[in-house]
Amino acid sequence: MRNLKLTLAYDGTDFHGWQIQPQLRTVQGDLKCALEKLFNHEVNVTGSGRTDAGVHAHGQVASVETFRTMDTDAVLRGVNALLPLEVRVLLVEEVSPDFHARRSARSKTYEYHVWRSPIVSPFQVRYVYPFRYPLDEKSTDCASKYFVGTHDFTSFCATSTQIEDRTRTIFEAYWDRADAKWVFRIRGNGFLQYMVRTIAGTLLEIGRGRLTPEQLPGIFAARDRRLAGPSLPAHGLHLMEVQY
Amino acid sequence: MRNLKLTLAYDGTDFHGWQIQPQLRTVQGDLKCALEKLFNHEVNVTGSGRTDAGVHAHGQVASVETFRTMDTDAVLRGVNALLPLEVRVLLVEEVSPDFHARRSARSKTYEYHVWRSPIVSPFQVRYVYPFRYPLDEKSTDCASKYFVGTHDFTSFCATSTQIEDRTRTIFEAYWDRADAKWVFRIRGNGFLQYMVRTIAGTLLEIGRGRLTPEQLPGIFAARDRRLAGPSLPAHGLHLMEVQY
Repeated sequence: MRNLKLTLAYDGTDFHGWQIQPQLRTVQGDLKCALEKLFNHEVNVTGSGRTDAGVHAHGQVASVETFRTMDTDAVLRGVNALLPLEVRVLLVEEVSPDFHARRSARSKTYEYHVWRSPIVSPFQVRYVYPFRYPLDEKSTDCASKYFVGTHDFTSFCATSTQIEDRTRTIFEAYWDRADAKWVFRIRGNGFLQYMVRTIAGTLLEIGRGRLTPEQLPGIFAARDRRLAGPSLPAHGLHLMEVQY
Repeated sequence: MRNLKLTLAYDGTDFHGWQIQPQLRTVQGDLKCALEKLFNHEVNVTGSGRTDAGVHAHGQVASVETFRTMDTDAVLRGVNALLPLEVRVLLVEEVSPDFHARRSARSKTYEYHVWRSPIVSPFQVRYVYPFRYPLDEKSTDCASKYFVGTHDFTSFCATSTQIEDRTRTIFEAYWDRADAKWVFRIRGNGFLQYMVRTIAGTLLEIGRGRLTPEQLPGIFAARDRRLAGPSLPAHGLHLMEVQY
């Protein structure tokens, strides 16, 4: 049995997220279907983690086991020929049997893309969140440092989160300008559902002066989702890279 | 009566081109509809020229006359609020009564976007033409100089072209690399139907060694569409700017 690591990109617009769901079009579902056609046997596709409906990926990672001996280039070409154009496998690598896309991941990098010009380019509209209100970009960037380090993120994730341990470590978090696009980049050892979108939404509230950076330690301590800012929409979120 | 000049961008993927056609979704049709709602009177929208189904625009220009006195900023915001997100008016300017979007145009710049990597990014797939065959990029770029100057372009336009005078002047034509994207940029005083796509398709034939640059003068002289290369698909073509 060979273990393969697949790095993939997808435009999440027309998918109901990563994870297989009955009757719905998902990235994991399309990938499983393409790989089963290629290998001619059933496969389990393990992702580094779920992405929600509408979220995009530039470097999602999946692992899959196969009996087939075809080389990795042939797998790359074969699976891309069977996938829809909105999903592309960028790289196929043979990895040791103990590699696991989710459990082996050390950290992940996400970006949240905010559009700061009143007119959103038709070529960007599927990938950015337009935020037209005046805000203080410098203080928003400074406040992002409050999220770096190890914290309990209960106040910054979906209230429906089942996971008990909501402690995660953030290695870096900052905002960066690229013309009209203003990008929030965050790298951490794990992310709870809606976590990046809620952190970004909270930082925009700070930029608008509706919250102050000094309130953040109290919001962490309260473990109460209602105290943080809103979760921003899915279509501005991009999974950039998974580090192993 | 005020004469307004509108500069606009659109993702042409889901449109049947610029020009109004009964029962079909067109950019001119959507723009006319939005402007008539905004002004509350009938309007004629004149474009700098047609773009075919699937062609994108970053700086198409239209002119429209109105009785209304609202300022240009209000027109910009108002029309964008009424247009679908795939079409954005970027700029509204009041111009003299003799300005005409088509007749006043001095030149236009088009780009044709070719993707030179085996895997097309899901975020680019709607906007580029993937061309995977090996080719000599340098000789393709050199050959583009044969198109600069004043020529009869009968061999390089749609055979159905009704216009008698097919002489046009090209001011510049060259290829430029931007990572995996390889961009053909061409500026001229006018373009016949399929002209940019046929020139780009002919240049790719030269790059593959199926035609030589030295054959081009003969192809021009023959005024025979069958001698040139294929017209490339619409979705790689971008109208960048109209110069007045």
